[in-house]
Amino acid sequence: MADTRSELPALQAEVDEIDQQILLLLGVRFRCTDRIGELEREHGLSADGPHASREARRERIRALTLDSGVPTELAVTLLDAIMDAVEAEQRRQRERYS
Amino acid sequence: MADTRSELPALQAEVDEIDQQILLLLGVRFRCTDRIGELEREHGLSADGPHASREARRERIRALTLDSGVPTELAVTLLDAIMDAVEAEQRRQRERYS
Repeated sequence: MADTRSELPALQAEVDEIDQQILLLLGVRFRCTDRIGELEREHGLSADGPHASREARRERIRALTLDSGVPTELAVTLLDAIMDAVEAEQRRQRERYS
Repeated sequence: MADTRSELPALQAEVDEIDQQILLLLGVRFRCTDRIGELEREHGLSADGPHASREARRERIRALTLDSGVPTELAVTLLDAIMDAVEAEQRRQRERYS
């Protein structure tokens, strides 16, 4: 077993790196959803397709978390917060361009 | 510009893949914090070191989000939810082993 005095800081650094990677992924995710909103506005498409359904996405997340070791309720909470932020941003964009 | 009918599903698939990657990273993060909690219990270390400070981690996240394109308040909300889940799990572990 590695010495605790070296293992603890290494683990804490790994947590920091993971947080950074999650933020980078979230940034890419926002660029995707911005572009999705833009395309939907341009083409008069509804955001209420089966893919946009919050419940469908939640179900998908529940299935994915079964193997990930992430508590399902936490995953759903996080995803809801992300989707709330995306929806608020898309409302702002629609108001700006309508 | 790519055809919208192909661009939209590609973007939606990318969002799904990002969600999956975030969940995988969260799973690794939980394994790290589980091991951190285990080491702290084994060695009678406090979880209240400067690194464990929620405010310090929030500050770090605020700094990181400046470049990521993620709304800072969303990043803080998400990180708080993750840290709440980690703390609840560590409380359960401490009760189990005390």
